[in-house]
This record gives sequence, C-alpha cells and structure tokens, in this order.
Amino acid sequence: MAVENYDIVIVGAGPVGLCLSTCLSRWGYKIKHIDNRSEPTPTGRADGIQPRSLDLLRNMGLKRKIMEYEPAKVYEVAFWDPAAKGIHRTGTWASCPKFIDARYPFTTLLHQGLIERVFIEDVEKNGTQVQRPWTITGFKNDGNDSTYPIEVNLAHVDGTLSETVRAKYLFSGEGARSFVRDQLGVNMIYKDPIANVWGVMDGVVRTNFPDIKMKCTIHSDAGSIMIIPRENNMVRLYIQVATSTDKDWNPRKSATAEDVQLKAQEILKPYTISWDRVEWYSVYPIGQGIAERYTLDERVFMGGDACHTHSPKAGQGMNTAFLDAVNFAWKIHHVENGWAPRSLLSTYESERKLIAENLLSFDAKYAKLFSARIPSAGEVAGASSNESEENEFVKTFKASCEFTSGYGVAYNPNEINWGPEHPAQHPLILQYEKGTSQRTGRILTPATVTRVVDANVVHLEQEIPLNGSYRIFIFGGEPSKTSTALRDLASHMSAPASFFSAFLFKDLSTADRYHEHHNPHTSFLSLALVFNSPRSKIYIDEQLPETFARYADHIYADDVWDQRVPDAKAAAHAKMGLDEVKGGIVVVRPDGYVGVVVKLEEGKGTCEALNKYFEVVTGKKLGGEKASL
Amino acid sequence: MAVENYDIVIVGAGPVGLCLSTCLSRWGYKIKHIDNRSEPTPTGRADGIQPRSLDLLRNMGLKRKIMEYEPAKVYEVAFWDPAAKGIHRTGTWASCPKFIDARYPFTTLLHQGLIERVFIEDVEKNGTQVQRPWTITGFKNDGNDSTYPIEVNLAHVDGTLSETVRAKYLFSGEGARSFVRDQLGVNMIYKDPIANVWGVMDGVVRTNFPDIKMKCTIHSDAGSIMIIPRENNMVRLYIQVATSTDKDWNPRKSATAEDVQLKAQEILKPYTISWDRVEWYSVYPIGQGIAERYTLDERVFMGGDACHTHSPKAGQGMNTAFLDAVNFAWKIHHVENGWAPRSLLSTYESERKLIAENLLSFDAKYAKLFSARIPSAGEVAGASSNESEENEFVKTFKASCEFTSGYGVAYNPNEINWGPEHPAQHPLILQYEKGTSQRTGRILTPATVTRVVDANVVHLEQEIPLNGSYRIFIFGGEPSKTSTALRDLASHMSAPASFFSAFLFKDLSTADRYHEHHNPHTSFLSLALVFNSPRSKIYIDEQLPETFARYADHIYADDVWDQRVPDAKAAAHAKMGLDEVKGGIVVVRPDGYVGVVVKLEEGKGTCEALNKYFEVVTGKKLGGEKASL
Repeated sequence: MAVENYDIVIVGAGPVGLCLSTCLSRWGYKIKHIDNRSEPTPTGRADGIQPRSLDLLRNMGLKRKIMEYEPAKVYEVAFWDPAAKGIHRTGTWASCPKFIDARYPFTTLLHQGLIERVFIEDVEKNGTQVQRPWTITGFKNDGNDSTYPIEVNLAHVDGTLSETVRAKYLFSGEGARSFVRDQLGVNMIYKDPIANVWGVMDGVVRTNFPDIKMKCTIHSDAGSIMIIPRENNMVRLYIQVATSTDKDWNPRKSATAEDVQLKAQEILKPYTISWDRVEWYSVYPIGQGIAERYTLDERVFMGGDACHTHSPKAGQGMNTAFLDAVNFAWKIHHVENGWAPRSLLSTYESERKLIAENLLSFDAKYAKLFSARIPSAGEVAGASSNESEENEFVKTFKASCEFTSGYGVAYNPNEINWGPEHPAQHPLILQYEKGTSQRTGRILTPATVTRVVDANVVHLEQEIPLNGSYRIFIFGGEPSKTSTALRDLASHMSAPASFFSAFLFKDLSTADRYHEHHNPHTSFLSLALVFNSPRSKIYIDEQLPETFARYADHIYADDVWDQRVPDAKAAAHAKMGLDEVKGGIVVVRPDGYVGVVVKLEEGKGTCEALNKYFEVVTGKKLGGEKASL
Repeated sequence: MAVENYDIVIVGAGPVGLCLSTCLSRWGYKIKHIDNRSEPTPTGRADGIQPRSLDLLRNMGLKRKIMEYEPAKVYEVAFWDPAAKGIHRTGTWASCPKFIDARYPFTTLLHQGLIERVFIEDVEKNGTQVQRPWTITGFKNDGNDSTYPIEVNLAHVDGTLSETVRAKYLFSGEGARSFVRDQLGVNMIYKDPIANVWGVMDGVVRTNFPDIKMKCTIHSDAGSIMIIPRENNMVRLYIQVATSTDKDWNPRKSATAEDVQLKAQEILKPYTISWDRVEWYSVYPIGQGIAERYTLDERVFMGGDACHTHSPKAGQGMNTAFLDAVNFAWKIHHVENGWAPRSLLSTYESERKLIAENLLSFDAKYAKLFSARIPSAGEVAGASSNESEENEFVKTFKASCEFTSGYGVAYNPNEINWGPEHPAQHPLILQYEKGTSQRTGRILTPATVTRVVDANVVHLEQEIPLNGSYRIFIFGGEPSKTSTALRDLASHMSAPASFFSAFLFKDLSTADRYHEHHNPHTSFLSLALVFNSPRSKIYIDEQLPETFARYADHIYADDVWDQRVPDAKAAAHAKMGLDEVKGGIVVVRPDGYVGVVVKLEEGKGTCEALNKYFEVVTGKKLGGEKASL
C-alpha cells in the first residue's frame, strides 16, 4: 500500500496543536492530526486567556465564539492576608493596569475544553480531522524522500490499528510527557529546584467571602489558596498540597477533594464556603522545566507543555502554547512558499525558548512573591496607580503585569526583527525612540481609526487578519504633504525585484481577484494605509497611486480622538510615535510583531530601506531599478 | 377530542411574531406559533437593525449571534447629486451622530432570514416550535371559557389538516395582508395619498463607485437610487419603479431585474457597475398605511406590518416590529401574573400607534426630503457637526436621526410613564430638567460603571436583562452621605404593602434562590445600585442594608470617566442628571423606558413616592407602615 504523504503530522490536540492546525488548515496544508484521548478535554485544565491572547484569537476570527460561552473576566486581583480573626483584604490591583495599552484589559476564564471546541470546529471547517484516540509510536527523519523526509508511525491506542505516513514536518504538542521529546533525547532542564504538588478544584460554591468573583491570593495562618472565577458561576481553587521544601516532601503526595475543601474552609475563616457541586478535581506535581531544544533538525519540532512546564499560578500555559503555535505556523508557511530561507525555522526555537525562559524566571519570582512574602497595604495601594514611588515589589508587579498580560513578550533582534546589528542598514530605518515608539519584536500599538470606504470605526491592529502575510502599515501623514513620497514609493515598488513585485501572483493578469481585499497582489504582503485627514476628505482613486488604491478596504482616516494622546490631531500616528505630517511605515510580521520601521520620504530611499530589510527576511536579492512606466 | 388550551396563539413568524414568541417562551408561556411559509425567509426582505434595536437585542442576549453573521455596519450616509458629467458627492453625514448618546452608533445590515434564525433557535431552546406551513382560518372571542376566551381555527396551507384551539390571547404578526385585521374589520388609513412601487435587488457587484460600501442616496438626471451595503460583500439597491404621481400610474407596474440594473447603470454614470450575482430581486407597491386599531377587545392583538406599512427607505420596519413585540410581551406578562390591571393592555395600542404615526409622518417627510429636494453642499457639511447654524433641513435631519436610530421613540405620559398629570403625586418625584435628565417614556441614558464584586467594567443599561421585571436603579451618591437614606428606604420597603414586599415570592423562606442574581426576592423587580465611590472602597455586606446587599451582582462603582461629562466625578450620576452626592432613583420599565424618577432622601418619603407610582402601575393598594424590625 502506498504511504500517504502529509505536509505535517501534528501530535496532540491541546491548545498548541489545535492552534497550529487551525492556521495551517486555513492556509491549505495537508495535515495528519492525532490525539491519544478519545474526546476533547471534558472539564478542567487550563483556563486563562490573557489580554494579548484575546487579541490573537480575535485576529484569527475566533474571539466571538469564545465569548459566546460567557467566560468570566478578571479585571482585578485581590490580596488577602492574615488578620487578628482570620483574614482581611489588604488591597486589590488591576490585572492589566492602565499603563498597558490593551484593547481587552482583562483575563478571560473558560475551561480548556470549550476553547478546544472552538478550534476544532474551525479546523474541521477547513478540512482537517483530529484522529482519535491515536498515538505516535515512532518516527525518523530518514530523508528517503527529499520532499517528505520524515517517516512517522501512528497507532490506535488500543493497538488494533496502525499506519505509517511520510511528512515534511512533525510537530509534538503532546504536553509535558512527550514521546517525541523522549525519542529525540532532549532533556528537560529544571530551573528552580523547588517542585510543587497542586490541588485544583472547579465547582459551584456558596460563600459569604466577598471577593469570590475576583482573582484572589489568600494567605492565612492555615495556608494559602488562589481563587479564580470561572464561566457558569463556577470558581476554581488552587491549593498547594506539598512542596519540595517540605520536610516530608513526596512528589506523589496526594489529597482528596474533601481534604482540599476542608483546608479551603480553614483558610477562608471567618468566611464560610460550601460546594453545591464539584465539576473537576485534580492533584498534580509541577516542576519548572524547560526543554533544552525545541528541534534538532528543523523538521521535527515541539511546542507548548512539551517544551516548558511551570506552575498554574499565572495562567500562562495556554497562552504560551498559542504563541508557540502561531510563531511556528507562519514560519513553516513562508519557508514552504519560498518566501523565506529554511534558516527562518531556527528563529522558532530562539524566539520561543527565550519567552519560555522568561516565563520560568517569572514563575519562580511570582511563586516566591506570593508564597513567601505578604505585601503590605501601602505597597498594594501604589501598585495600580501611576504616581506613587515604586519599591522593588511594585516594580516587580508592574513588570509582571506586562508579562502576564502577554504584552511583555519581546523577541530579540534577529534576521526578522530589525536591530542596530541587522545586516539591513539604511538611513531611513527608524529606531525605537528615534522617530518611532514601535519596538521591533513587540506587537504593534493598538489604534482606532475610521475606514474610508464605509466609515466604520475600527481597530487598526485587527484590520489585517492572521493570514500569513507580512503587514505593511503605511502611515501617510497629511496627504497633501506626502503625495510625492507615496507616488515615489509606489513607483519604486513596481521595479521587478522590489520587496513587492518580487512576490506578485504569477497569475495576476488572468486570475479574478476583484473581491480579494487582503491580498490582491501577493499572499506575501497585506497593505494598509492611514492618513492624517478627516475621512470625508480622502478620495482614494483621485489621490492615491493605483497600487495603493487597490487596497481601498484597508485605507483609513486617522481622525478618532484617543484618551492616551489627547492633544494629537492624528492619534494613530502619534501612538506609533511617527510624525503626524510626514508619516512613516511600520512593517509587522504575520504574527503581529513589529519587524522594522521606516521613514516615508520622497525619492527611492523608503523603498530601498524596505528592500534591504526584506532581502534579509526572504533571502532573495531585492532592489534594482524601477520599471519604466 | 379535547381542545388544547394555549396562553397565546401567534400568527406569523416574521420579526414581530418571533420577537414576541422569544420573550414569552423564555417567561414560560404556552404558545401556539404558526407561519404560513414552509421555511423561514431564505433571502432578502428587511435588513436594517437600528442602534436602539441593537441595544434591545443585546439586552435579550441575541446581539452576539447576530454579529456572528458579520453584518455590514452603516456609520455614515452619503449624498450624490447631478453634476456636469453624471453625479458627484455633495456630502456625507453620520447615520447616528455624536449628539445621540448611543452605544452602537451604526445601523446593522443583515438579511431578515438570518435574524429570524437567531430568534427561532432561541424560541426552540425554550420549548416553542413554529408550526409550518399553517395558517389561521377563523377565530372568535366567544368567552365560552373565561380563562381561554378565544377560539382559534388553524389549518395546514394545503387544507389537509386543521385544528381548533383555545387561547387567552391571539396575536397577528401576519404582515401587511393580515387575515386577522380583515376579520376584525379594522381599516388601514392611508396617511399620504402617494403610493410607490419599489424595486429592490441584493447582489454582489463590481463597480468603481467609491461609496458602494456606504448607505447612499443618489439623484441623477436618469433617476434616483438608494444603496445599502449588506453582509457577505453584497449590496442592496432600492429603485423607485413608479409612483402614484406618475401620469401613467399603475400600482401593478413592474420591472425586471435587467430593467433595474440598466437603470442603476444609467444613474451611476460616470461610474460603472455590473453584477457577479443577484441574490434576491423583488418589486412591490408600498403605501403609507396605519391600522385604525391594534386591538378591539384586548384579547386579539396585532403588531408589526399588520398595523403599519411604509417605504423601506429609512429601514424602520423590522425595528418597529421588535418594539411592538416587546411592548406587548411584558404587558401581557404583568397582567397574567397579577402585577398589573388588565387596563395596562390598552397602553399597547396607545403607545405603539403613536410611534407608528410618527414613523409614517417621518416617512412622508423623508421621502419628500430625498425625492424632491437636493441638499446643497453647505447644508450637508453642517449636518453632522454640532456648531453651525441650523436651517430647516438640518433640523429635520437631526430630528430624523434621533428617530431613525430608535432613540427618538418617546411614549407619552400615561399610567406607567409618570407625568405632571399622573395620579401619583409626591414631592420627591423628579421631573425632567428639574433634578434629572431622564425623561419618562424614553430609554435610560447609557452609562459605564464598574461592577463591585468582580471589577468588570460594564454597561449599566444592559446589566438587567429583558427579564420582564421593572428595573429599580438606585443611584446611591456618596455612600457616607446616603447611608441613612438607604437604610430608611430598605426599612420602609420591608413594610408588607410596599411596592417591594407586596410582590415577594411566596416561597421565599423555602425555595433556594442562592444563585439567583436578578430576581432574588420577586420577579416583579430587579434592583441595581450605583455608588459615587471607587470600587475598592465599597464593602457591600458592611455598608448596605441586607435587602440591597442581596443584589451584590448588581452593585456598581460610578468610577469610570466619560467623555460626555468630562468634569464629573461620578459620570453615571451626572449623565442621569442626578446629584452626585445625594443620588436618586430611576425606575425603568421592563422594556427599558423610564417610568419615574424619585429623589433619595432620609425618612419615608422615597419609599412613599415609589409606592404611589407603583400603586397606579399595579392597581394595588400599596404603602402603609413598615414592619417592626
């Protein structure tokens, strides 16, 4: 029997596997996706969607479906400490404070199974089925087939059926106990020698504890507990059952649901709590581990819990998984389309492993912060306002908020994130705080603008969906001042070897792309233009070069007032730190992170600078003379 | 065979019938719902959801499902007039300008079938099935059964099956050709002698007309056309095919799709337009008619198009239908629960017929405005800003915007909408512009607040869902200043015959209402409390009387800055026109319209005033001494 070939075999249908499968299914890849459970997660497990992840889910068109389940939203965290009689609240603070410019300044709480369901529906709509309960039994990158170098052996969990397939890539989203990782011989490094056993319980409670609908960390003389509100009137409790610093430490130590309930009742005194029902209860040991490598051969990759494990306290697991998946997905997509050299794949590990390391350091600090030290009321009061002097604790808190909200994710300079050492050097490239507030390796600042064609008030950062394309945001300043610069840019982009023309659809003249809004010219790029002008004064066809006018659905007026830059005439320009008259160009990677920022000037310089950046990104010789018009 | 009894028979499953069925199904009524079509609307027909209707749909928990279909949103309207060569845009203006305080300042465009589907799913979830294709063949209010006085005869449209049922109420949502209306002998009055034949076409087009994604009214020497963007990249065109002022007027005049397309091409010159596909095309005559009565016996009622027909230009049909349905639903609910005298039912006709009359007057004016007179550029520029001097045309436009957005709906004073002539007179009742900005018979001003228990930033006006209850919004001012007033109010509310205690659940001591947030004490009322205080300074159990503390999920901090009242410390109080320190109470009808506004004062006065108002509303003797505590 002929062996079936796939673009990728994905093992595991948890958050990382499903998010990856969703992207690649939409982009037309042939996927073998297996999971060793017979059903999606029925209850419990991960549940926290951080603000930045919600941006991402919206960018994938999945946010509304998540919100249909009416998740709980955490805007603030409350701290309770021992008091003369039981416990008292020492303060509350924002979980995503105002100094972070977030569209959704809250954590969304919903059980993993419902989130998985949203992804599964999308994956199925795009032709991929998760095959269950199947498991991986072996694999090798034998290179017997240069296009499909990996052989993968799969089997039904009951051993009755098996299948061998070949694939271009294999991805393990298997979770902490990864067969693929074991087979590769990749070690987990345990950063912090302290391991913990956690008890976690979801249920519907009755209590007179006033903050039961808030995220709370409660310290009492009877122990500590973390409370997290859930959908459907539920509450999750986390209780540390044992820690490796205990004298009688035993990583297999367990506790019954009743033990945990009794302990919670002790901790919450003088308040009372009882359970109408318990939906899920689990006890599990957690160590702060990180995989030494995410891939050995850039064919077999891992992501999610297979690469990093940590405490559930900060609710980061699923979020890190999503970002692993998206980071990986677009890079595979670009390599397979010939838009990037294979070397791009090495940035998956270098970018995501750094974030996982940050996460683990943070997790260790966070655990110490909450377990070992009780913040005083004074510190807490200062934490959510911008004014008060900052002690070490408040500073740590602030830094943590940015990190836990997902906005602190910062990728280092490399070939796709421009930096002073980048091979692309051009006088028009703008650096952070020198002509722009945008930082490469960070997500684009959100901004509200008015779409010209339909006068809809929209979120600029969401206007180009996660379609695998680089996003070129052309901030056009005042149209009367920049018309020559724009004409020059369009003209130089028409040179056959420009970053734009080099990737044009081959069938441009024959295929019918009339109704294509995001990618009329090339799937490599999506363009958007923003002008410092009232909407009604922008005449697309009259004012813009034809190339830009073709993006009519992505042309915006920067005419919406913003509280963060109250004096700006063009708030989006101002938030990007760009000149409101002269504008500038922000190149954003397909996953939403800024790649490079370039000045918009008359002449060939702007296009040259972009050519230089994309030359490094794509590994292609770009530039040269413009076509004679 | 025993005749089956129903609470209500609803004929017609268009917007009015479905919206009514949704409310009553949720509230537990036994419904026979029939429609003479074998399927829900497959394409075309009504499509415009006005801003106020979107509020209502959200209040019903249906907005998200509507938005899942990705409707088009109209923020602005563009006007095109004859020019030297073809047409030119003379201006654009907001369809719901900033002077209207709307959460959703846009019109939502989605075809009626998809909107119906959202309602049908909800109705079915609550146990009602629309029986198709069935029709009504006869009915009489014979009073043979005092509980179910109406006999209704129903039959399958093919005549093979028939059924006779008895009901408390019969509601015709049959549309313009209403069998029920004919049988009752109720005449349609034609306000404006001018009738029109309209051609309407939904399709996907290709065009270089720049405003194809805006709502446009285009006048050219070749005729007039109205453009409305739709979901799925579609566009709707309305073309007047004939009018009764034509010399050769024939109400049966028709036009083919090709006729309309050719005419559109003529009108749009110098721009081009062609069709990729036509989804729906229809030609129909419309007159501006209104039914003389909406009911004769307060048992058989009509609503929606059965009561009022008008041109499609302003997109009001479906919106008026929704509001008819909701107005009717809660009144039936209150009468059937003994919370209101039967006389309440008379306000359905008096309130809704007034609105239909306003709609028809508006429609006539609107038609004249757009068909007969071409606004000059100067007028248009002034229309969407607040500043410029206002001529008659701009004034009319502004008044129309408020009306078309749905916020201009104003019910006259009657027993439920307090006014100076209302039987309930008390010195603490506040009048419009004398202590409050809230107007009885108008909807509550929107306001953003922070929910105390979970720190969620929420839309106050949406916090109590359309649950059939009166909504008592207690604006508590500064807690330190109003604690006595609140204690006094709670104490007087505990008197057995207060507006609150008179409607307590009978089973209050035995039933388990722990998880009931909206109606812990009575289904007649839902309470919400808003305090001029930072969220973290509100201690519900410590500061509030037990009765109010029970509404913990409906207690809010008025601590969110609002651009409309930038200097207010407590923006929600300020927007209600209430004293920020002393507060006040706004009583809102179950359908969201303000009933009465009362001062919050120490002593018995506040409760007295509320008792007096609700005495008239409920037809019960209320008041008397408070219980000894």
